[in-house]
Amino acid sequence: MIEKLIARIQETKAPIVVGLDPMLGYIPEQVVKAAFAEFGETLEGAAEAVWQYNKAIVDAVYDLIPAVKPQIAMYEQFGIPGLAAFKRTVDYCHEKGLVVIGDVKRGDIGSTSAAYATAHLGKVQVGANLLTPFGEDFATVNPYLGSDGVKPFIEVCRVEKKGLFILVKTSNPSSGEFQDRQIDGRPLYELVGEKVAEWAESCMGAQYSYIGAVVGATYPEMGKVLRKVMPKSFILVPGYGAQGGKAADLVHYFNEDGLGAIVNSSRGIIAAYKQEKYAKFGPEHFAEASRAAVEDMIADINTALQAR
Amino acid sequence: MIEKLIARIQETKAPIVVGLDPMLGYIPEQVVKAAFAEFGETLEGAAEAVWQYNKAIVDAVYDLIPAVKPQIAMYEQFGIPGLAAFKRTVDYCHEKGLVVIGDVKRGDIGSTSAAYATAHLGKVQVGANLLTPFGEDFATVNPYLGSDGVKPFIEVCRVEKKGLFILVKTSNPSSGEFQDRQIDGRPLYELVGEKVAEWAESCMGAQYSYIGAVVGATYPEMGKVLRKVMPKSFILVPGYGAQGGKAADLVHYFNEDGLGAIVNSSRGIIAAYKQEKYAKFGPEHFAEASRAAVEDMIADINTALQAR
Repeated sequence: MIEKLIARIQETKAPIVVGLDPMLGYIPEQVVKAAFAEFGETLEGAAEAVWQYNKAIVDAVYDLIPAVKPQIAMYEQFGIPGLAAFKRTVDYCHEKGLVVIGDVKRGDIGSTSAAYATAHLGKVQVGANLLTPFGEDFATVNPYLGSDGVKPFIEVCRVEKKGLFILVKTSNPSSGEFQDRQIDGRPLYELVGEKVAEWAESCMGAQYSYIGAVVGATYPEMGKVLRKVMPKSFILVPGYGAQGGKAADLVHYFNEDGLGAIVNSSRGIIAAYKQEKYAKFGPEHFAEASRAAVEDMIADINTALQAR
Repeated sequence: MIEKLIARIQETKAPIVVGLDPMLGYIPEQVVKAAFAEFGETLEGAAEAVWQYNKAIVDAVYDLIPAVKPQIAMYEQFGIPGLAAFKRTVDYCHEKGLVVIGDVKRGDIGSTSAAYATAHLGKVQVGANLLTPFGEDFATVNPYLGSDGVKPFIEVCRVEKKGLFILVKTSNPSSGEFQDRQIDGRPLYELVGEKVAEWAESCMGAQYSYIGAVVGATYPEMGKVLRKVMPKSFILVPGYGAQGGKAADLVHYFNEDGLGAIVNSSRGIIAAYKQEKYAKFGPEHFAEASRAAVEDMIADINTALQAR
């Protein structure tokens, strides 16, 4: 799957990923109204609004981008119907040829991590059948529990040719509370990064490993260090745009070959129509606003990459 | 909810929790066969087997115990039908008067953590309606992302009178890889424990806080230290039995008042009929085997508590 991700980045010339994190408050009124008219003000109604919103955005941008990253929490908050909308979104993005990064931040131990890996990246044996529970291509994983927590995910990736992005340094203001603490003169996130590099080495595709990392756009100096610590890993970079990360800061997350990083934007793309810059589209043309925002983001990042 | 948990522990004299972590391999053949006969060898069939298995065990043990802890990964691996069985289990346990600890180990940042908190402990606004997505009473939370990740959960707990168990020191062999690393002369898990204590202080019930911690039974010396670091927090203790934790080691997780800890057993209870000790029940009476195993576990822990 890392090969498909790389191929699609090269085809689209867009090292970006669109975060499908649909809050109800982002969804234009006409979409919400239509969903409520059909399913009522219920979890099913909310899930339908989410699905219609996602579908319109995916239809508008899929040819420009290599990958999407649905954030499962935004679906889980609408219970079972919400998770059904998550699954429908994953399947639809696959139909459109997109790589799907499940932003699930799961992590447990032993057989429990194996169950999460099966849920999101694998197949589950039921009697004589092998069935696909959710079927994303990559998943994000929390490393706090150590190797026992991560290895069952790696095993499933090996079998299914899928991949991981392991949290190393997150984009939020308080990420330093534990992640930046000094251990033998180096911050915890660097030790986690070294562990990721070790796992990555044993899980190589042609040029890159299928074990990647998450490093927030909001900490570019740390990104520079971590790029060197994990030379074979793709870095998934959240925090561009709405959270404050700038393209010029992101060039250090890439290797010299122009690969090695994929920058996420969620709100900045899917709710673009709410920004002054794209207000001319209006809520009725929200998907076109998202397309314009994707084009601008690609140009912004490529300009920065060319300038380095 | 912490008051309800304490009241039920005192009523049952059982500071234990039964982990409802149903692997298909644990479920007796007659239950699986009946489910497959009705729904086929499908995700629905697997979910039905899980539900029938859980229901039989809950019916057999609910009067002996204060709480259950379904591990969501074991349901998530069966996709949407599996998660519907999770929800059905949560609802059924509530009907039976049990406290439900959702072992979800979620954790993200800002609005994403808020969405997870809503999903598992809160209510979601859909139009004019406030709806309950999953509705557990407590949830387990991963602290790697720092306060930004935990505070949205705390906010929901405050409103809904729910609670958390935050991962401090996990029971698995490689938990030390990051959690034990020394920071200013103390291990990371102790710093996380101090943070939990700080959050706990601001979220007090009558005697105990509704912000608790997870500390594995497999590290009793660390449990002793962490008990003192977090005096107002309940400690959820996994790792008893199958993972190797012994009752005598667990007394230090309790305070002098006999409260402050709740010990989990999953496999040891729900798959008791597979152990030599309970083999006489046979697979057809698996639920009675679970009841006997619960009675033995309660006696084992109370004997150790009385001997201290």
